[in-house]
Amino acid sequence: MALTLMEGNEAIAWGALAAGCRFFAGYPITPATTIYNAMLYRLPPAGGICLQGEDEIASIGFCLGASMAGHKVMTATSGPGISLYSEQISFAVGSEIPIVIVDVQRLGPSTGSATKGADGDIQFLQWGSSGGQPVIVLAPVDVRDCIVLTMQAFNLAERFRCPVFVATNKEIAMTRETVDLDALDLPAVESRSMAAPDGAFEPFAGSAASPVPDFLPIGGRRIVRQTSSTHGPDGYITTDPDLIAATQERLTRKITSRPEAFIYCDYLETPGARTLVITYGVTARAARDAVDRSKRQGAPSSLLVLKTLWPVPERLLRAKAADYERIVVIEMNLGQYVREIERLLAPRDIAFYGQMNGELITPSRIAEVIAHG
Amino acid sequence: MALTLMEGNEAIAWGALAAGCRFFAGYPITPATTIYNAMLYRLPPAGGICLQGEDEIASIGFCLGASMAGHKVMTATSGPGISLYSEQISFAVGSEIPIVIVDVQRLGPSTGSATKGADGDIQFLQWGSSGGQPVIVLAPVDVRDCIVLTMQAFNLAERFRCPVFVATNKEIAMTRETVDLDALDLPAVESRSMAAPDGAFEPFAGSAASPVPDFLPIGGRRIVRQTSSTHGPDGYITTDPDLIAATQERLTRKITSRPEAFIYCDYLETPGARTLVITYGVTARAARDAVDRSKRQGAPSSLLVLKTLWPVPERLLRAKAADYERIVVIEMNLGQYVREIERLLAPRDIAFYGQMNGELITPSRIAEVIAHG
Amino acid sequence: MALTLMEGNEAIAWGALAAGCRFFAGYPITPATTIYNAMLYRLPPAGGICLQGEDEIASIGFCLGASMAGHKVMTATSGPGISLYSEQISFAVGSEIPIVIVDVQRLGPSTGSATKGADGDIQFLQWGSSGGQPVIVLAPVDVRDCIVLTMQAFNLAERFRCPVFVATNKEIAMTRETVDLDALDLPAVESRSMAAPDGAFEPFAGSAASPVPDFLPIGGRRIVRQTSSTHGPDGYITTDPDLIAATQERLTRKITSRPEAFIYCDYLETPGARTLVITYGVTARAARDAVDRSKRQGAPSSLLVLKTLWPVPERLLRAKAADYERIVVIEMNLGQYVREIERLLAPRDIAFYGQMNGELITPSRIAEVIAHG
Amino acid sequence: MALTLMEGNEAIAWGALAAGCRFFAGYPITPATTIYNAMLYRLPPAGGICLQGEDEIASIGFCLGASMAGHKVMTATSGPGISLYSEQISFAVGSEIPIVIVDVQRLGPSTGSATKGADGDIQFLQWGSSGGQPVIVLAPVDVRDCIVLTMQAFNLAERFRCPVFVATNKEIAMTRETVDLDALDLPAVESRSMAAPDGAFEPFAGSAASPVPDFLPIGGRRIVRQTSSTHGPDGYITTDPDLIAATQERLTRKITSRPEAFIYCDYLETPGARTLVITYGVTARAARDAVDRSKRQGAPSSLLVLKTLWPVPERLLRAKAADYERIVVIEMNLGQYVREIERLLAPRDIAFYGQMNGELITPSRIAEVIAHG
Repeated sequence: MALTLMEGNEAIAWGALAAGCRFFAGYPITPATTIYNAMLYRLPPAGGICLQGEDEIASIGFCLGASMAGHKVMTATSGPGISLYSEQISFAVGSEIPIVIVDVQRLGPSTGSATKGADGDIQFLQWGSSGGQPVIVLAPVDVRDCIVLTMQAFNLAERFRCPVFVATNKEIAMTRETVDLDALDLPAVESRSMAAPDGAFEPFAGSAASPVPDFLPIGGRRIVRQTSSTHGPDGYITTDPDLIAATQERLTRKITSRPEAFIYCDYLETPGARTLVITYGVTARAARDAVDRSKRQGAPSSLLVLKTLWPVPERLLRAKAADYERIVVIEMNLGQYVREIERLLAPRDIAFYGQMNGELITPSRIAEVIAHG
Repeated sequence: MALTLMEGNEAIAWGALAAGCRFFAGYPITPATTIYNAMLYRLPPAGGICLQGEDEIASIGFCLGASMAGHKVMTATSGPGISLYSEQISFAVGSEIPIVIVDVQRLGPSTGSATKGADGDIQFLQWGSSGGQPVIVLAPVDVRDCIVLTMQAFNLAERFRCPVFVATNKEIAMTRETVDLDALDLPAVESRSMAAPDGAFEPFAGSAASPVPDFLPIGGRRIVRQTSSTHGPDGYITTDPDLIAATQERLTRKITSRPEAFIYCDYLETPGARTLVITYGVTARAARDAVDRSKRQGAPSSLLVLKTLWPVPERLLRAKAADYERIVVIEMNLGQYVREIERLLAPRDIAFYGQMNGELITPSRIAEVIAHG
Repeated sequence: MALTLMEGNEAIAWGALAAGCRFFAGYPITPATTIYNAMLYRLPPAGGICLQGEDEIASIGFCLGASMAGHKVMTATSGPGISLYSEQISFAVGSEIPIVIVDVQRLGPSTGSATKGADGDIQFLQWGSSGGQPVIVLAPVDVRDCIVLTMQAFNLAERFRCPVFVATNKEIAMTRETVDLDALDLPAVESRSMAAPDGAFEPFAGSAASPVPDFLPIGGRRIVRQTSSTHGPDGYITTDPDLIAATQERLTRKITSRPEAFIYCDYLETPGARTLVITYGVTARAARDAVDRSKRQGAPSSLLVLKTLWPVPERLLRAKAADYERIVVIEMNLGQYVREIERLLAPRDIAFYGQMNGELITPSRIAEVIAHG
Repeated sequence: MALTLMEGNEAIAWGALAAGCRFFAGYPITPATTIYNAMLYRLPPAGGICLQGEDEIASIGFCLGASMAGHKVMTATSGPGISLYSEQISFAVGSEIPIVIVDVQRLGPSTGSATKGADGDIQFLQWGSSGGQPVIVLAPVDVRDCIVLTMQAFNLAERFRCPVFVATNKEIAMTRETVDLDALDLPAVESRSMAAPDGAFEPFAGSAASPVPDFLPIGGRRIVRQTSSTHGPDGYITTDPDLIAATQERLTRKITSRPEAFIYCDYLETPGARTLVITYGVTARAARDAVDRSKRQGAPSSLLVLKTLWPVPERLLRAKAADYERIVVIEMNLGQYVREIERLLAPRDIAFYGQMNGELITPSRIAEVIAHG
């Protein structure tokens, strides 16, 4: 047993290292800075590089360059920084560059409150760059999740050659918890599929076996074409509508075609429950308490904690919800993910409680919503 | 009669001038640049200022400064530029600064294809900044709309002290059409509600009459507090959860509480139609043709062209859709606004056709979707 | 009589307006900021534009663009800002763009002391950009000079199509003095020599009459070629050694061939004096006192206050120095301009006193140097 | 014997590695880019870091940070990049941060001609930042010098805690020469003097033994105060005139008090010569030829090739010149270093020939100047 006391941000750094991350670049912003600090402390001894860029734009640029050179990379920021990443997130999507981006959410809009949590970026992470292609967003609940989901985020980024977001929150990031590192069930580490260095190579070609192109690093013997412009499988700019459509379709399909392969969630089923509470992030912890109370109070409810937010686990949500009369969605914002649940479950009655005032949602508030809507 | 031949971008400049815009700053990007050119040609003779910033970030910064000083302002860019605006869009939302932002959409992701159209930013415009507060997005179909909706965009920005987007598209922007300027039914020009220069003044206080605070320009006799941080009605930073919640609620309510006041749409009802086609933007033009054909082919359909995309005109959509057996949604992307329609109309069967390959969707393709799904 | 109390920075703004300046861009830095403030207050009512750029680089860029468009322009900063201007100063030199650049010197090196004066940039202003072509540097002593020399700086910038520096100092900039504006003998305002808008036009061609090319604004009917690369008279890039040499020679000759046309200085001759004190800037004021004292103490000295520092008024210095046995140079730095005087007057014995500790040099200190070296 | 064919830029990289350089950051600019390329190729295998910054300002910033952390660092650029370094050069001077800065000079002003040589930055390197404190500038003539003087530059930067410039030129940088690496007489490698990690430590205190403060890296156990503001020995901001004066004096003295310790030059004495040719840089090679010719033509001359340009080796110049009737200075610019020679040797007759037209000065042109002035 190896009990360690660490905050969520340290746990993310721990997970990144365990997943093989060897490059980190970022620009300080509360409450994400301690990820940078932890990486600065841990990466160089592990043979990696940790760097502060001139600004957020330079920082994510360094990461994308390092990823194109073959490294596993991560950056971390908060809402204002995700804004500044936006253009290059779109580049990572379109040019299929693996990267893990941690968003330690804080209260917005704008610079807002640096030391107050919120889950205000849940739609932003999916839709926050031009084009609208799907991305992957994972949401940890606690320190253990910070470790495991960060590792999964690296695996998914490598597996699908895409940006993967870890949507955490000031309250998780800066809360220290005890974790037994030996007892963790860590996922196996995956790496991007490499092309043969000598054969024919098209940098953006899917195959029969997979919509994800094989990878070769820039800087090697073979020229690897890379462009932010609309391109065909060979990496040359194209205006051919069929090639363009095929690429758009491939970018979508690779993320969305087998979502069940990476649905992370906790489902706490309560016998006899007629209400299903759906939530995610730090709010899940209060929701667990509230669901416990609901049992004791004779109005049992179940709890579904989503840890894969995007792509929306549609089948899971429909399946779980089918067993309940009533759905209650709780979010630390003014109603973002509930829109997706409405989309899937309408016209069923869906109760929503959202709060974005810098405070955690309390178990008693949730219990109240469970009881009375 | 004053027949004028102009492209959509010139029409936006024309509308901006007519609405009282006296400040424009931007950074060149195809296909938005001709808006800048037109403003450069027209603004200075009208006593206004037209400026190219060092980059997109500086450009929108100039606009927000000028707006805080009391001017009606506009900027224009395309997807990559909206990305770079993201952080300051959030500032405009949170600090309630009127601005009209034109997004001349082009094919993404990333730099994509500068001279190919798309409607790939429809979710991005709503969700593309941290915090998730609502914004207003209008979508013109043709040159006439470019004039009229740009004027409405200014009116709404002033009325609600918020950013308003005009979501256009390379195909509208760069197509010249004849327009009879004398025959246009132009909206009355509105301006922001000014506080008395001498009374008590709270820069972020709603009133009984309106959730929108009265405005005073910076630089006048009274100190006007302005901050990108979480603030109360007096403009001072606050951590009081009740004050924060009240502001968040007000930011939402001012935009969403009376959506019917600014629903722009065209509804082409066909007697006997059992299918309703819903679309927006340049695709509406092909959809009109397709609906015409559907009549001639004995399977009549109606057409709803949305010109207010955000906030979603929920009541309108539900009311119109109620009369039809089948809903067909057509978009020049891979499926963005259809998610909102699903959210509202699920579990009804909604056929979707999306295309994002640099080409316009043809009437015959739409007619096919109408006929066969 | 119109007695006005103004500080040196306001006087510079006053002079700029009087000289026809209609564009100012800058970035705040103590002790130059009040020039920006004064221009912001005065330029717009005069039909001009006053602008803060995103940073120093953007600010001087705006100025050069406005100058190329035909306006008289000024910017103001302190040492760290001159550093950031360096690349574009070289552009102004090589592309012959008129601009007045005010350097309100403060104590360096680096950010140093924002509120302490020094004359530490005297060599920097001449040599602070790549290439080594000559520039013009004027140095005011008091509020009256700030007005008159700023006007002369504009005249010289226009006459020679070149950057002209006004080298002032925190102590002049922020000291208020009474000045009788009506009594000032203001120079006539000059403007750059315009080419005929319709004839043959070479943007970088000297003529028999003048080494300074005629000017046409960019944006007019004729295309005006402008480049930061090595170019011939026609403005096209060239690698022809003769054309390059001719341009280099012309850039030098236009500034240095008739220096007596713009030698500004005060010469206080004391009968019987055997010592000549040479100084410039705010130190001249203490030197006047010291020279007065020297008379009363029976060891009379004369005083030469240089107000044109670059190009070095070589003939003047040699002529004046010829009459004295001893030369004393006083500078508010560690010995910069004294190098030029050594170059001209060596091997004569030249006493030097320099001080750069944030304090003014006192009359008694100078008197001591006069008396004892 | 290890004959190697390398260009001057590769030789600089070779010398840097040999001197212990383990950090390089730069931004590409012809003709300096191949230094970056060579460092990129060689540094990482040597355990070092080679980095391209977002721009020149970021690049030198990275270097200064790495130097403060205890590494030997180098950057390389050309004139426009030195301009952008200017502000941080002043920081390095004032905060006593060792760094080697290579200026591969090209033809200016402004962007000028990227592939043409010049020695146009000779005064710029000394005077190109605010404050006027002395710096060290070395000037290689050939590949061998590029190796040896780069090593000396590192030694001097470490010995004096200051920026040291290597002033090379496109013609040296991009000419390949054979060099026998085994036969080189390489200097011993020096490193900055470290403070005891545990004793009392003042980061900017000279001692009786040396005006150069001992060094401790930031990031260690002891707090190391570092500031760009005017400071006393303890690193705290000060306005005390005596402390300020003492620091200014120390910054000057440490560089200038023992110049003979690092005078690099070649002196080719010709018996019977009455003329001394003085030059530096690539022009020295033509001058050697010209001096040879002068011997054969019966008008023998000697040659002094300066490789330490700043601080000016005053005693050496005076001593050597004393033996000749006539001084001839040749420069690949319009007359920069000749000013220093005039300052030292006036009123002696000094013939000058300068050329800055993108071409090398030929031996016959120099021979002509020797013969006829």
